[in-house]
Amino acid sequence: MESLYVIKIGGNIVDNPILLTACLQSFAKVKGQAILVHGGGKLATSMADSMGVQQTMVEGRRITDEATLKIVTMVYAGYINKNIVAQLQAEGVNAIGLSGVDGNLILAHKRVNAAIDFGMVGDIDAVNTKLLNQMLLNNSRLVIAPITHDGKGQLLNTNADTIAQSIATSLATTYQVHLIYGFEKEGVLKDVNDSSSVITKLDKLLYKKFKEEQIVTEGMIPKIDNAFSALEHGVQSVIIGKAERMDELIKGTAGTTITN
Amino acid sequence: MESLYVIKIGGNIVDNPILLTACLQSFAKVKGQAILVHGGGKLATSMADSMGVQQTMVEGRRITDEATLKIVTMVYAGYINKNIVAQLQAEGVNAIGLSGVDGNLILAHKRVNAAIDFGMVGDIDAVNTKLLNQMLLNNSRLVIAPITHDGKGQLLNTNADTIAQSIATSLATTYQVHLIYGFEKEGVLKDVNDSSSVITKLDKLLYKKFKEEQIVTEGMIPKIDNAFSALEHGVQSVIIGKAERMDELIKGTAGTTITN
Repeated sequence: MESLYVIKIGGNIVDNPILLTACLQSFAKVKGQAILVHGGGKLATSMADSMGVQQTMVEGRRITDEATLKIVTMVYAGYINKNIVAQLQAEGVNAIGLSGVDGNLILAHKRVNAAIDFGMVGDIDAVNTKLLNQMLLNNSRLVIAPITHDGKGQLLNTNADTIAQSIATSLATTYQVHLIYGFEKEGVLKDVNDSSSVITKLDKLLYKKFKEEQIVTEGMIPKIDNAFSALEHGVQSVIIGKAERMDELIKGTAGTTITN
Repeated sequence: MESLYVIKIGGNIVDNPILLTACLQSFAKVKGQAILVHGGGKLATSMADSMGVQQTMVEGRRITDEATLKIVTMVYAGYINKNIVAQLQAEGVNAIGLSGVDGNLILAHKRVNAAIDFGMVGDIDAVNTKLLNQMLLNNSRLVIAPITHDGKGQLLNTNADTIAQSIATSLATTYQVHLIYGFEKEGVLKDVNDSSSVITKLDKLLYKKFKEEQIVTEGMIPKIDNAFSALEHGVQSVIIGKAERMDELIKGTAGTTITN
């Protein structure tokens, strides 16, 4: 099976033009198929500030009211997405930018939560695998913004990590999928204060041991649990590491590689 | 040959949710292939106002400085494009939103003008007909935002009328193309103050006569000249009329139909 890299990058890279360019150059060099999923960054917050739209955060998550949805749609699906695509085109990559609404790529529903109303936040119901396959067969590299829809005309703000995972698993029967999460840390660390303590390989047995020994910290547990869930759904490997080292993450020479 | 409708709508429709919905419902009902090109509207101006970005207009045209480019990219390719696509999806239409940068759909260069520096405004060099054909063959309806790129990483603000014309002519060898311009007037009028004086059919001979008799007013001449240019490049018909009557414009029962 042909390789497919599904790469997720977040705010720390998106906000920094120099790091972003380096990351996109690494993405451009991937052999085989590749999909980039990007998050937001500080631009949405600064836009909201300059427009006088108050941002409410609950448990570290943005509440997406109507005004905020408008801003994230503009910033994620407009500004960030199109600038990334333009840069990739300049690198000679046939990139196409999409949001989850385009071609019904990602159908979602408004999150139901009894305790907190997250507003216009979407939880994913279905990925349009057929559309992804068609576009990959046409040798397009896809750049995906984390805006989905409910099929009834409503856009929804959706977690980019979850989008990357859903896309990776949806293509796992057609491709040998490697899912890469670029974030601000070097990987899963044995000592959270020592960036050189990266656990280079992590499997289920070792993870169980590290959890029992409380080596893996609480903040990382959801990320790693999601990684194992992706592996259970057919993804070949999940790599978590510093987005600035995208070249090495793709080669598997940096970050934490998680396998079954 | 199969029919293809290339339909351009502008600010007057985009700014009005009720008119926009009606227009999209007409678009959804088109038999055969269809592409929608949308312009901007007042939202970009009000965004600029609320962000304190001064807008400079020269001869009725917006000067696109860096801050303005950022805003139009967000508003056109983000907010307007994705909301139109979401509404079309809700109507059961397999719509995909693209800007000119996606898949290198529209390559342009920064306008060179000795007298006025329009800023980041693009004049079109090439349309990626292959991509359009691929997507149409997959039964997608395309929704195109008027942002292009120069192939070197620079996004450019580009006139939506010109984009519609370029797309229409680029597909004229594959489809029987009907190009529809929805605008604020009923069509080409004999008497500019009488909206019932629509010239229903206009060919080159009649146009020459009307120009000599100064029946066709100055403001309409560039639009009509562009229409004839499209016809010379293989487009079957060009229909100009009130965007609110999209159903009738598609049927050819309203507006001015221009043919060779």
